[in-house]
Amino acid sequence: MKYTEMTLAERQGAYAAEKARFEELKSLGLKLNMARGKPGTEQLDIVMDIFSVLPTNADYISSGIDSRNYGELSGIPEAKVLFADILGCKPSQVFVGGNASLQLMYDAISKAYTHGLKRSVRKWSEEPVVKWLCPAPGYDRHFKVSETFGMELITIPMTAEGPDMDAVEEWIQDPAVKGMWNVPKYSNPQGIVYSDAVIERIAAMKPAAPDFMLMWDNAYCIHEFASDFVPFPDIISLCEKFGNDHMCYEFASTSKVTFPGAGVGVMAASEENIAYFTKLMSIQTIGFDKINQLRHVRYLKDKETTLALMKRHAEILRPKFEAVLHGLDTEIAPLGIASWERPVGGYFVSLDGMEGTAKRTLALCAEAGVTMTGAGATFPYGVDPADRNIRIAPTLPPVEELKQAVDVLCTCLKLATLEKLGV
Amino acid sequence: MKYTEMTLAERQGAYAAEKARFEELKSLGLKLNMARGKPGTEQLDIVMDIFSVLPTNADYISSGIDSRNYGELSGIPEAKVLFADILGCKPSQVFVGGNASLQLMYDAISKAYTHGLKRSVRKWSEEPVVKWLCPAPGYDRHFKVSETFGMELITIPMTAEGPDMDAVEEWIQDPAVKGMWNVPKYSNPQGIVYSDAVIERIAAMKPAAPDFMLMWDNAYCIHEFASDFVPFPDIISLCEKFGNDHMCYEFASTSKVTFPGAGVGVMAASEENIAYFTKLMSIQTIGFDKINQLRHVRYLKDKETTLALMKRHAEILRPKFEAVLHGLDTEIAPLGIASWERPVGGYFVSLDGMEGTAKRTLALCAEAGVTMTGAGATFPYGVDPADRNIRIAPTLPPVEELKQAVDVLCTCLKLATLEKLGV
Repeated sequence: MKYTEMTLAERQGAYAAEKARFEELKSLGLKLNMARGKPGTEQLDIVMDIFSVLPTNADYISSGIDSRNYGELSGIPEAKVLFADILGCKPSQVFVGGNASLQLMYDAISKAYTHGLKRSVRKWSEEPVVKWLCPAPGYDRHFKVSETFGMELITIPMTAEGPDMDAVEEWIQDPAVKGMWNVPKYSNPQGIVYSDAVIERIAAMKPAAPDFMLMWDNAYCIHEFASDFVPFPDIISLCEKFGNDHMCYEFASTSKVTFPGAGVGVMAASEENIAYFTKLMSIQTIGFDKINQLRHVRYLKDKETTLALMKRHAEILRPKFEAVLHGLDTEIAPLGIASWERPVGGYFVSLDGMEGTAKRTLALCAEAGVTMTGAGATFPYGVDPADRNIRIAPTLPPVEELKQAVDVLCTCLKLATLEKLGV
Repeated sequence: MKYTEMTLAERQGAYAAEKARFEELKSLGLKLNMARGKPGTEQLDIVMDIFSVLPTNADYISSGIDSRNYGELSGIPEAKVLFADILGCKPSQVFVGGNASLQLMYDAISKAYTHGLKRSVRKWSEEPVVKWLCPAPGYDRHFKVSETFGMELITIPMTAEGPDMDAVEEWIQDPAVKGMWNVPKYSNPQGIVYSDAVIERIAAMKPAAPDFMLMWDNAYCIHEFASDFVPFPDIISLCEKFGNDHMCYEFASTSKVTFPGAGVGVMAASEENIAYFTKLMSIQTIGFDKINQLRHVRYLKDKETTLALMKRHAEILRPKFEAVLHGLDTEIAPLGIASWERPVGGYFVSLDGMEGTAKRTLALCAEAGVTMTGAGATFPYGVDPADRNIRIAPTLPPVEELKQAVDVLCTCLKLATLEKLGV
């Protein structure tokens, strides 16, 4: 029976039952974490062969470059080829960096502030105001990068096909709007795949700002867990088709292919932008970890081999997502108190409860030993205006623990909703 | 016979002889490089055991932290202990970063511009002018970091004991002077070790700027090649002694201990500054490569083991520096046309020729196939006002090649000097 169709007495009865369940779960002294998109240990274990791919000293020298010494700021050639293969762009459009694509995103924006971009009229630090489009719910770390630079964050509603392009097209007429965040494939947190129509409208945008940054964080480009690999358009050539040759900055990493924190991050952009960025980066560093780049090239080999590895990750991840969806389907769906997407890739499930229930739900979860992503984190400034979105990150805990955590979450969501409805 | 004591005819005779020698060397079609402080292949080969220190999956988990997963932004605890041991500071004062200390220096300064430091009155991007003290000759990459942010670079003369502190103490009375570069032990390029008296004067400085950055790039802290390890004061506690608890930012890396580009870089500073920097960095990245940090901890173990490894590097490096000094002693010293230091550590020999000879010398070297650090690179804005300083980086070429390169350099220096004197 739906909560909204219950009488007060029925809600009170339901509340007492759920409260008893909550106390029972709480007494287990759980310490579970569904807060961040961290791979589980089993996933880390399957890629350990990466440390065996460079057996002799001679193996560290490739294309005449000793990966153990200084040099090759923009990455070793083989790594550019590998990532161009995966992303569908050209090797000359790829900058291979260190262990984190987030750092490349931050650096690109930071340089816009301290130096200006190639097509900037002035440094962004000299702009009276910089505005930035944030499709939401979205990735909290993206929003925080924008926020830390003092940008004005503009919330763009997400639709089932991607960002609301009517809103985007209106906002970009303002020259103070300098960029837009995107996780176009299996968006964080909803797992939405931008539709071809939305992607084409994005590529065809005509922003008033000459240095508009289309930030295309293709974090989950090959990260299907319940589907074969889904081909995805190369945004850089699509932007070129519409005369936006220099608008797009694409990012990807192997953080969820090999190791989070010890993978390889890349930025792809027009050759002009890569050259400009490389020149600025040449002041910041002599080069990134080429041994790790080479290790990845030897281990991942090419797109086909990499996709085969992703199938193995999928086998580990699928039961975890199934456990979450099964819990929601059986415990929450009948009550009519929340909705959620059913992603086939990415690292999250996004849950929308009734207005005003997210914070309370997560506070109860914490009380019962389950750490979740903070309420509001998926919105600009960390504030969910409806206080309803909950991000579930089911990848880290083993399946049995995860089932307990989902049990806790469902119980807490029920309690919070009943409290909201009145008990 | 000294060139300055020669008659025109004698100089012409000497010039003809050297010119013939030059053509002979040129005809060898050499392709030698003494431009950068790159370790040689033999040095890279002796540290390859670092890849054997983590044999099983369980080895990657240390102090309860799985180095293969996200987290531990400021570095793994064991790495902080190791670097504190080497630098003589406290583990709580250490931030362990990625593969490059230069990137940490850049980031610290970049954040002063975009966010301000903990004790800044305002962001540096809002300062009308930022001035920076540059002891010169110095490290070109330091100066370029300052230059890229638009600072006004102030040249401070180097003495045999370190920077001219009278000049420094006068300049820091200007609140626009926000910092100072230092390579205090085996300075780049002269190999000068700051004296205790100079270090104490530095630690006791009272800069007008509340957010003055004493940049202490201890790049060669354990890099003796012709001496046992020379103990060196911990600058952080020395600054504390004089009430300058938060003035110093120290940097070091294993780029020349293990691998350039695949080592570990660290920043050491007051706990307050480390906490502030860590908070800002938390927006930029989820964390650095902890697997590489752990690998270094297991391999280098402690200061004693690390110093033993440095002895092995020294054995490789010593003959190279001896070859340079032998060449200069035999070919140049009798002519009285240049002076140089005799460092026992670091990566360079700094040569001061007669005024107006450096550019010409290096152009001739290039013509004969020997690449050297660009003339002027060791001075702010890349301009050596006397056009006399030449940085010799003898570490990369094998000894036999190096002897040839030194031969070329001496010949070119003689030609340039004779041209200057008139032939």
